Amino acid sequence: MGKLVFVGLGLRGLGGIPLEGLEKARGADRVFLELYTSPMADFSPEKLEKLLGKPVTLLRRVDLEDEGGRKVLEAAGGGCAVFMVPGDPLIATTHVDLKLRALKAGVKVEVVHAASIYSAAPSISGLQIYKFGKTVTIPFPSSGYTPETPYEVLRENLSRGLHTLILLDYDAEKGRWMTVKEGLQYLLSVEEKRGEGAARPERLALGLAGVGGPDVEIRGGAMGRLAKADFKLKPQTIIVPGSLHFVEAEALKVLAGVSAEELNLESPG
Amino acid sequence: MGKLVFVGLGLRGLGGIPLEGLEKARGADRVFLELYTSPMADFSPEKLEKLLGKPVTLLRRVDLEDEGGRKVLEAAGGGCAVFMVPGDPLIATTHVDLKLRALKAGVKVEVVHAASIYSAAPSISGLQIYKFGKTVTIPFPSSGYTPETPYEVLRENLSRGLHTLILLDYDAEKGRWMTVKEGLQYLLSVEEKRGEGAARPERLALGLAGVGGPDVEIRGGAMGRLAKADFKLKPQTIIVPGSLHFVEAEALKVLAGVSAEELNLESPG
Repeated sequence: MGKLVFVGLGLRGLGGIPLEGLEKARGADRVFLELYTSPMADFSPEKLEKLLGKPVTLLRRVDLEDEGGRKVLEAAGGGCAVFMVPGDPLIATTHVDLKLRALKAGVKVEVVHAASIYSAAPSISGLQIYKFGKTVTIPFPSSGYTPETPYEVLRENLSRGLHTLILLDYDAEKGRWMTVKEGLQYLLSVEEKRGEGAARPERLALGLAGVGGPDVEIRGGAMGRLAKADFKLKPQTIIVPGSLHFVEAEALKVLAGVSAEELNLESPG
Repeated sequence: MGKLVFVGLGLRGLGGIPLEGLEKARGADRVFLELYTSPMADFSPEKLEKLLGKPVTLLRRVDLEDEGGRKVLEAAGGGCAVFMVPGDPLIATTHVDLKLRALKAGVKVEVVHAASIYSAAPSISGLQIYKFGKTVTIPFPSSGYTPETPYEVLRENLSRGLHTLILLDYDAEKGRWMTVKEGLQYLLSVEEKRGEGAARPERLALGLAGVGGPDVEIRGGAMGRLAKADFKLKPQTIIVPGSLHFVEAEALKVLAGVSAEELNLESPG
């Protein structure tokens, strides 16, 4: 029976690869890689090939979405294929789809989990992960159309006192990463239009940059002010806190430089 | 300046340790370890010492909570200390507390992220991670008192059509892991008392066991039926789906053996 192993690469560089993932990739008949579902800083296929000591086949979006990962399934059908992906595998629908195809074809599937922005950003922010509500991504506006879903998700989480993890779009083709500044400007612009209070300029927000690296920038403050700040590192992420426990408030002071005044700026809802 | 590096161990065994974490631990002056905040299957301090080629100091709850991690801070103040922890670091409040103490003492802090059940369980379930609401843990009842918060969180998520990740308690002192069966029986018993519909016996639920290992058990079905099923592997986790996209429904059929009939069993809310 053939085998397909999904291996997560973690957040950046080669250092996030789990020991088991390295071992499985070194022992595989074929190694595939995709880099379009999520941003990876300090990473290149060449560096990975050097670490593994073997060639790696880089797959494009078209290989997975239009061709259904045919190359991967063929390799997995006749031996052991490893498919290395950014972050934790199977968060992207395209990975789930490939897994289902493999199972239907009688291929055994294993998963080597790795670090994901879904736990890394909440945990490093000093906020409590079980107080986060639904997550949302702000997409780059396409042809002038700006969806308001991210604003609505934020409003709903705030009404329950929950924190919101707001991921920022990554355009793999253009190599373009959305910044905290762009994300906040989007939220403030929807607020101006709808006036429902979720993204008032005085609402507390956090910007995170370079999560997963040795130096992480975390800065918090009123949205209106933070929307003018420049973060250097990539990728960037926004967190909008809901109700704060005093332990969380203390953590935000120390970790994100939030002043006592700013902590009192706003109440959720 | 001293340095403290938090290194995540991932989900189980030694294979979840990120390459960077291994490197930092091998290069550190002192390595500390805790195993009480989260369950780790197939893991022992002795195996870790063998991998690192150096001694590891195992910390108990009392070392961190009562003594504030004094030993770790002392070691970090005078060199480089690595603190290895289950899952992704800083999800446990006790880690955040130690990080704040270190920063206040002028110690540089770095974090090596690793796999966490917070992303691994949702992603491997075939459900879409951005459709999960607030997470909750079902605790072992203490002195007969059973909190109803997990039920309330589930009800609230369902009313918004969101999925719920329900973590199950782990008693590190007794080495006891809560099972899917126990967790579901708890939910069904609160339903019987409150009758608000969140945990009706016919509501669809998923049980997951052994997430992070080579063989993962995922089974879905009506809560009443699933509450009688035995899962072999550890740790175990419950997911209660909210509204299902057809891609998610298809994934549950293949991955969790949910029948077409069961998929239509219930509507959220």
